[in-house]
Amino acid sequence: MVGGGAGALIGNVHRIAARMDGEYVLVAGALSSTPERSAESAARLGIASDRSYADFDDMARAEAARDDGIEAVTICTPNHLHFPAARAFLAQGIHVICDKPMTVSLEQAHELAELVRQSDALFVLTHNYSAYPQIRQARAMIERGDLGDLRLVQVEYAQDWLTEASGSKQAEWRGDPAKAGAGGAIGDIGTHAFQLANFVTGMAPDQIAADLSSFVPGRKLDDNANILMRYASGARGMLWASQVAPGTENGLKLRVYGDKGGLEWSHETPETLWFTPFGQPAQKLRRNGPETVEGLGRLSRTPAGHPEGYLEGFANIYAEAATAIRARQAGEAPPDGLATPGVDDGLTGLFFIDACIRSNAQNAAFVTVMP
Amino acid sequence: MVGGGAGALIGNVHRIAARMDGEYVLVAGALSSTPERSAESAARLGIASDRSYADFDDMARAEAARDDGIEAVTICTPNHLHFPAARAFLAQGIHVICDKPMTVSLEQAHELAELVRQSDALFVLTHNYSAYPQIRQARAMIERGDLGDLRLVQVEYAQDWLTEASGSKQAEWRGDPAKAGAGGAIGDIGTHAFQLANFVTGMAPDQIAADLSSFVPGRKLDDNANILMRYASGARGMLWASQVAPGTENGLKLRVYGDKGGLEWSHETPETLWFTPFGQPAQKLRRNGPETVEGLGRLSRTPAGHPEGYLEGFANIYAEAATAIRARQAGEAPPDGLATPGVDDGLTGLFFIDACIRSNAQNAAFVTVMP
Amino acid sequence: MVGGGAGALIGNVHRIAARMDGEYVLVAGALSSTPERSAESAARLGIASDRSYADFDDMARAEAARDDGIEAVTICTPNHLHFPAARAFLAQGIHVICDKPMTVSLEQAHELAELVRQSDALFVLTHNYSAYPQIRQARAMIERGDLGDLRLVQVEYAQDWLTEASGSKQAEWRGDPAKAGAGGAIGDIGTHAFQLANFVTGMAPDQIAADLSSFVPGRKLDDNANILMRYASGARGMLWASQVAPGTENGLKLRVYGDKGGLEWSHETPETLWFTPFGQPAQKLRRNGPETVEGLGRLSRTPAGHPEGYLEGFANIYAEAATAIRARQAGEAPPDGLATPGVDDGLTGLFFIDACIRSNAQNAAFVTVMP
Amino acid sequence: MVGGGAGALIGNVHRIAARMDGEYVLVAGALSSTPERSAESAARLGIASDRSYADFDDMARAEAARDDGIEAVTICTPNHLHFPAARAFLAQGIHVICDKPMTVSLEQAHELAELVRQSDALFVLTHNYSAYPQIRQARAMIERGDLGDLRLVQVEYAQDWLTEASGSKQAEWRGDPAKAGAGGAIGDIGTHAFQLANFVTGMAPDQIAADLSSFVPGRKLDDNANILMRYASGARGMLWASQVAPGTENGLKLRVYGDKGGLEWSHETPETLWFTPFGQPAQKLRRNGPETVEGLGRLSRTPAGHPEGYLEGFANIYAEAATAIRARQAGEAPPDGLATPGVDDGLTGLFFIDACIRSNAQNAAFVTVMP
Repeated sequence: MVGGGAGALIGNVHRIAARMDGEYVLVAGALSSTPERSAESAARLGIASDRSYADFDDMARAEAARDDGIEAVTICTPNHLHFPAARAFLAQGIHVICDKPMTVSLEQAHELAELVRQSDALFVLTHNYSAYPQIRQARAMIERGDLGDLRLVQVEYAQDWLTEASGSKQAEWRGDPAKAGAGGAIGDIGTHAFQLANFVTGMAPDQIAADLSSFVPGRKLDDNANILMRYASGARGMLWASQVAPGTENGLKLRVYGDKGGLEWSHETPETLWFTPFGQPAQKLRRNGPETVEGLGRLSRTPAGHPEGYLEGFANIYAEAATAIRARQAGEAPPDGLATPGVDDGLTGLFFIDACIRSNAQNAAFVTVMP
Repeated sequence: MVGGGAGALIGNVHRIAARMDGEYVLVAGALSSTPERSAESAARLGIASDRSYADFDDMARAEAARDDGIEAVTICTPNHLHFPAARAFLAQGIHVICDKPMTVSLEQAHELAELVRQSDALFVLTHNYSAYPQIRQARAMIERGDLGDLRLVQVEYAQDWLTEASGSKQAEWRGDPAKAGAGGAIGDIGTHAFQLANFVTGMAPDQIAADLSSFVPGRKLDDNANILMRYASGARGMLWASQVAPGTENGLKLRVYGDKGGLEWSHETPETLWFTPFGQPAQKLRRNGPETVEGLGRLSRTPAGHPEGYLEGFANIYAEAATAIRARQAGEAPPDGLATPGVDDGLTGLFFIDACIRSNAQNAAFVTVMP
Repeated sequence: MVGGGAGALIGNVHRIAARMDGEYVLVAGALSSTPERSAESAARLGIASDRSYADFDDMARAEAARDDGIEAVTICTPNHLHFPAARAFLAQGIHVICDKPMTVSLEQAHELAELVRQSDALFVLTHNYSAYPQIRQARAMIERGDLGDLRLVQVEYAQDWLTEASGSKQAEWRGDPAKAGAGGAIGDIGTHAFQLANFVTGMAPDQIAADLSSFVPGRKLDDNANILMRYASGARGMLWASQVAPGTENGLKLRVYGDKGGLEWSHETPETLWFTPFGQPAQKLRRNGPETVEGLGRLSRTPAGHPEGYLEGFANIYAEAATAIRARQAGEAPPDGLATPGVDDGLTGLFFIDACIRSNAQNAAFVTVMP
Repeated sequence: MVGGGAGALIGNVHRIAARMDGEYVLVAGALSSTPERSAESAARLGIASDRSYADFDDMARAEAARDDGIEAVTICTPNHLHFPAARAFLAQGIHVICDKPMTVSLEQAHELAELVRQSDALFVLTHNYSAYPQIRQARAMIERGDLGDLRLVQVEYAQDWLTEASGSKQAEWRGDPAKAGAGGAIGDIGTHAFQLANFVTGMAPDQIAADLSSFVPGRKLDDNANILMRYASGARGMLWASQVAPGTENGLKLRVYGDKGGLEWSHETPETLWFTPFGQPAQKLRRNGPETVEGLGRLSRTPAGHPEGYLEGFANIYAEAATAIRARQAGEAPPDGLATPGVDDGLTGLFFIDACIRSNAQNAAFVTVMP
């Protein structure tokens, strides 16, 4: 693990997700920005002292040189270190599981995509929301045509933790362009919403118009984004990402409508997918319930009605990564049905951030996402 | 009553709303587009045959000439007749209660606004959603500062009845620019959403950007509108109006966020207003419940927990109109607290439709709403 | 109208319900317990002074003697007057619409049932909840076998307004055995819950076991009832009625399960009926939505998604009563599909109250409901 | 681990729960009823072959004899093996984490309670629902008096998986009195509901009346239980446990009302606790949200809005057990605030089952729970 030392929220999430299904053991790390704090965190996590590294470059080299060196690394640092850390491990042929957004610039994203293409190692991006069973269900239903031709996409991701100026460690680096990149809310949560909508619908907008705001005085990056989307097919969409909406917690919501029906999913109740075939009663589709698409059972650990949530969704990313890594190690193709997000999702995310910035600079005019 | 003959959905709604509190008796009408059908409807509704008129001009003149002539008229025709009918009755000093959108063009709206200004008669526009008790509660809470400075407005109105091409009477005139005006979804339901957001927040956007679509082949007017909004205060908003979202019924929803808290209201559960003060638990505010703002009791007919809905909200418009009419007849000012929508809301609605059309013609660029 | 003068909650509900569809005009009344207050209320409601009566006996006689005398009377007094008032009007052949519980004793209920049997006049009991469209939908679905053989009935009616001792007019007479009868919560709301369950399932328990409590010191009647039910078919049930459950408002809920599926309805969202066929996704059945059983359209006034509620349900009782009265006046059978509650529901309700009292006196042993 | 071999649902749940926080490593097991199947499961789970045992007696002896022997054992067999297995490990001083119901008879429960009292080892019973953060919140709020004097307890646990006769492995042993004990639904889920209500309210009923049914032909144990409860304080309650309610999944719900307010919790949305102080708006209390009682943070792994569920609740039991075991090993008292269910909960559960059987045999008369 790179990053994720003491006080890091997301580091513990990655560790639990990795541990959940018994597929990973944490044996090495460069957990913090100083050797001392890294060592301290390592000790607390049961990492042997000789495998606690001062930085990720050391770690990549040293682990690659060991017979029992790590097979995969998780990168959960602030955004600006994703690229150099991923580069270091990919260069050693070590599989990379990386947090999002993938990089802090579109240029880096292109470069990383190229490195992945040339590497034997796998690159997995933890767009964890796309691994919720009912999100996979939605994707499968759209793919098989249950909604007909898609017309409308409504996606939003609303939080309230930046309603006021905050001095928390989280808020600090996420609000600093040098560490977070050019996107505030659009990078932190907008990329999740964008990826989720694309993942479920199987299409990405070719044009977007973005109206970005920074409501809190002194804030350097956007804390709210109101976005219109246009798809090549003629479909239309809206995306709202906000970190200043009091009362929302981690409010990711997706609604998709076609000419035959609609689907609705909300992160607050992630195990329910509403299916609304036109002219018929709404159906409440539940994780592991009736109508679950074949093959999705592997993403569930318990029967319907035993709430699974965020950590289990995150663990699904790790489980899929493990499956893909095993297949790669065996020289086999990964089994059908894996849908682990990777470098393409990361690149698309950076195109999205870039397009938001460009559109906003032009008074929210529509711009091409991937020019 | 003008319009509202056999087969008209909204005519019966107006009649029930007028009857609910015992303040109105239906005694005269020009209910349909032909004298025969008007007479037939009139007979069924218990209107004396000599007070069933062939058209609204006759009716306005004849009723004005009677000692027991009507005091007020309800206009619930297709949109294109709102203006000439309203003009006819205002000219006779008869109070007008009119359906929305107020007219089929901005020019007509200006003209009608002028006529109302010059008339002794009152003009009420049935933006019925603004008379739900919990909408009034929201407005009062924002006015007194419970949300702090407003930052975000999210409003939507989604239906599905035009998902497929429809030959119903309703669909026919609403899809015909000659009868409906330049707006499809934006006129029929977008104006409601726009008025509601303005009514509750006490402010109207000065700029909007509108991306309009007509998804169903052959449809002449928009059936979906994705809209961004900017307010002079710096606040931002989004408005979605759709008639092609399968599974939605009459899905009007409003969310408003300020720097101190948020409010959320949905038409599917109109008696609940969610209040989310920043850093405190969400509160479920119920019609006639604890925390109900003083003076709103008059908009309720039963205790909390006895569901009131659409017809009662509509009836509140009629009750307020009755109160205003009585005050006018007595030469007095209306009592404090009335908030009946009128000609200004109607004019704003036509500005909104016009701005949508202008923006859409410029590739969804931001345009000034009231240039 | 008898009862329903100034300050009466339910009187106004009856008036709105009667007015809603234009089938009734209020022309006479004995509205309060003194002639002065009756006259005052009558004047405010537009009743001619010569038709405001000092008591219901005078009213029954005088109206029967008039050529334009009333065709039907609504009785919405405290419970102890239901019987003598109903008797007076039935004796004159005037149709009776009466509030529940029907009488204050089982003996009176038997006597009234006999009077109704001998009379040409109709007797309607305003068990208003049984006229909600989705309750009728539930009844029709069970009747046609959608749930298979019924096994379980779960019904509850929870309120909180008597959590503390109350001096309100409502609380006063409802807590006085001389005016309310032997039942507190069981009479006031338990009878509603019992009737609703019976109405929907088409069966009544033959045995119940009731554990009654009076939590508030000084209260003479029960304010909470926990009840077990057994049906002749082998089905089992539970009924909870409470007026001391803080946070509940008017919380009537019904769940029924058979060997093929279940149904769930809650008064807080009365337009939704959940249908859960075993092994299939739950379906959200909406008033006037897809799957609405034929013939139920007449109980709706607006399309799905325009919330109708308590007053509309109450008005459905009045509308059905009007239909039945017209048929009776025409010497015809009432049209198919009417399901207006009447004297049998009232008698069953008194059997229920009596059985609760008997069971509670025997330490909540099971007793036969109709011995 | 004892039990939990291939095909066992709950075995995997225990393993994930143990793994979640990195406090346990699975090193030994007697996983199935035959040595071959045990070995097969052990191999798949990474247990060394010399630590896969033919039965729990062997395992207890052998592990106690090893220097690196297990510190704790999890027992997740069918019910009838809980007692002998627990006895075997307690005899060796090995800490026991055991599934519920604790034993198959009240006699065994008494005997086990005595063994635990005499042992240095800890005994933890996995009443996992009592470790949900919002359940702990409810308990703390009641303890500090937020609800005033308790009056009413409504608890239910409804499932539908036994609506029809089932030949599944799960259904088989749970329906066999020799393996499950005298209780069907009352043992399997009724004990959970009973424990939860007692845990949250801090009191247990002294009398209950139980009406048990077996709806499916050939079923030997109850599949539905309708139960009344009386508390020494005068409080009253109802408990419903069913496995034949189509459309319910794992529907555990608890509502508690006192003279100052109420609380409501449902397993379908386990992160929300509704607090309804009398005369004030309902508050939505969220896991890790505002108003979270001090000290409960340790039961959460993520911020509010990141759904945690069944596995995390289960893991909280394991985490608390680990804390208690460490304290015991260090010869210290466990830290304040642990509320891990143990042998007393198990004994109470068997009293409950026994009382249900006794009451049902007496036509559902009230019986004393702990005579």
